[in-house]
Amino acid sequence: MLLGSIEAGGTKFVCAVGDENFQVINRIEFKTTTPAETLQKAVDYFKQFTELKAISISSFGPIEIIKTSAKYGYITDTPKINWSNTDFLGFMKNNFNMPILWTTDVNGSAYGEYVTANEKIKSLTYYTIGTGVGAGTLINGKFLGETGHPEIGHIRLKRHPDDLNFPGICPYHGDCLEGLVCGPTFQARTGHRGEDVPLSDHVWDIMAYYVAQAALQTTLSILPEKIVFGGGVVSEQFLDKVRYEYNQLMNDYIDVGDLENYITMPTVKNNGSATVGNFALARRKLE
Amino acid sequence: MLLGSIEAGGTKFVCAVGDENFQVINRIEFKTTTPAETLQKAVDYFKQFTELKAISISSFGPIEIIKTSAKYGYITDTPKINWSNTDFLGFMKNNFNMPILWTTDVNGSAYGEYVTANEKIKSLTYYTIGTGVGAGTLINGKFLGETGHPEIGHIRLKRHPDDLNFPGICPYHGDCLEGLVCGPTFQARTGHRGEDVPLSDHVWDIMAYYVAQAALQTTLSILPEKIVFGGGVVSEQFLDKVRYEYNQLMNDYIDVGDLENYITMPTVKNNGSATVGNFALARRKLE
Ligand SMILES: Nc1ncnc2c1ncn2[C@@H]1O[C@H](COP(=O)(O)OP(=O)(O)O)[C@@H](O)[C@H]1O
Ligand SMILES: Nc1ncnc2c1ncn2[C@@H]1O[C@H](COP(=O)(O)OP(=O)(O)O)[C@@H](O)[C@H]1O
Ligand SMILES: [Zn+2]
Ligand SMILES: [Zn+2]
Repeated sequence: MLLGSIEAGGTKFVCAVGDENFQVINRIEFKTTTPAETLQKAVDYFKQFTELKAISISSFGPIEIIKTSAKYGYITDTPKINWSNTDFLGFMKNNFNMPILWTTDVNGSAYGEYVTANEKIKSLTYYTIGTGVGAGTLINGKFLGETGHPEIGHIRLKRHPDDLNFPGICPYHGDCLEGLVCGPTFQARTGHRGEDVPLSDHVWDIMAYYVAQAALQTTLSILPEKIVFGGGVVSEQFLDKVRYEYNQLMNDYIDVGDLENYITMPTVKNNGSATVGNFALARRKLE
Repeated sequence: MLLGSIEAGGTKFVCAVGDENFQVINRIEFKTTTPAETLQKAVDYFKQFTELKAISISSFGPIEIIKTSAKYGYITDTPKINWSNTDFLGFMKNNFNMPILWTTDVNGSAYGEYVTANEKIKSLTYYTIGTGVGAGTLINGKFLGETGHPEIGHIRLKRHPDDLNFPGICPYHGDCLEGLVCGPTFQARTGHRGEDVPLSDHVWDIMAYYVAQAALQTTLSILPEKIVFGGGVVSEQFLDKVRYEYNQLMNDYIDVGDLENYITMPTVKNNGSATVGNFALARRKLE
């Protein structure tokens, strides 16, 4: 039996097939172009695998996840050109007669971390800090967000005193969390790509102050057992700064135990959490 | 059959007994003094009712709600003098041989709003803005917060440009949500009690800006079907200001439908949500 994973990102798609132990057997990446072209590539890829029994899609958004909605399975109102109002799930269902699960990219990653921890983590929030910022939360194996998927990337934060003149780059809100800490903010603040800004640069302290507030809001509003940070911007050294700022902000108000275990990088390496999560969700869909 | 409700506040206790339809049959209020005196008063009150079958306590906090903890049922580390480390639930259990439910004050209120809506609301967040600020969230009839109760009162916010010099009054964090909008901030900002500050005063716009951010964070991180605001500071006119600021902040990013239905006062009048909630929780505990 094979399980299929589609990680649909705004920049690239990663499709993979895996076995019942969620091990990757085959994997392909391609650029996100038009919906017609991109989704057809995904279909062509999976058609090769006759043993495929179920697929899970974790997609960039906003997506419609209310099952009773006429737009269930759609990418809805996205700023990404051509992709608004795309019936992603419908296209897949027309091509594959098997269970297909539909969720957000960050939910897929959160689920991957959950199964990798042998489902022993009752509640977990997974943040990605990359081209955009998003988070998915699992509580007792269920995704948080009854009527849609939460968009915690757009919360407002207390501004860092050394960053008051930076307006932020979210097209909707300016200085929301995403507008202050997504990867492209490095270019906007320093003129350099994040990859090229050394961790000794003060901009990383400012980043850590905001990301720590994201963790803090999550602790205070959801109190998950663990907060995982993935995405291109995140490194273990950066998370050390985040933990430091988090401690300052929390000021001993809520004890979450050892911060090294509470605020962590993903257990699955190389941004592979969503693939593992998709395999597990696909299998669950079969049960 | 009678059901018992204890609403344990830092200022006063409200004890009540109700029938199976959650109608109040008898009710008493008394000041919160020492734990020994206050809890004994609660015990003496309920001892009068021989038909009492279950009690639900919704308490000020922080409280321990992890059942496996040695401190389960305690008020833990509170700034309120004499009350740190009080075995509230234990004291009640020693006096009553019946099911006793233990939760937070805001959870009790959230549950009251949930049952009053005939459990038709899948998810709901109840905020209180009074002497302190707190919130409880119910999702499919279950409280959010696996390992403890969330403390959303202490999230950080984007400061209002006309309020930058106000340091906030939270003893732990200064300008967290509670430090910026709890009732006593009126005295701190204006020298007058909130009751005496007219809604035309600009301080109410500042208040609304922050409370709208609280609603916004909740929408973005939890996406409940409804956000209810109770507590002494809240009025329908104030919520109009909150809705206005919420709209500005959200900037059409997530559509929650009619804001008049999404951000509301409690359905149960006169801060009675927690009493109804306790009756319902007590009955549920019997099942
Ligand atoms: N080491 C790094 N430090 C800071 N930013 C980085 C680093 N590596 C990548 N980035 C930034 O992360 C973003 C890409 O994030 P990533 O998670 O890899 O992709 P995506 O979010 O598009 O799936 C880009 O803006 C990139 O500049
Ligand atoms: N109309 C009002 N406008 C503003 N603040 C008010 C108003 N009425 C009461 N308050 C303030 O609300 C707080 C009391 O809140 P309340 O919810 O009644 O009690 P508690 O939180 O102690 O249970 C006090 O700080 C009081 O000054
Ligand atoms: Zn935004
Ligand atoms: Zn605080």
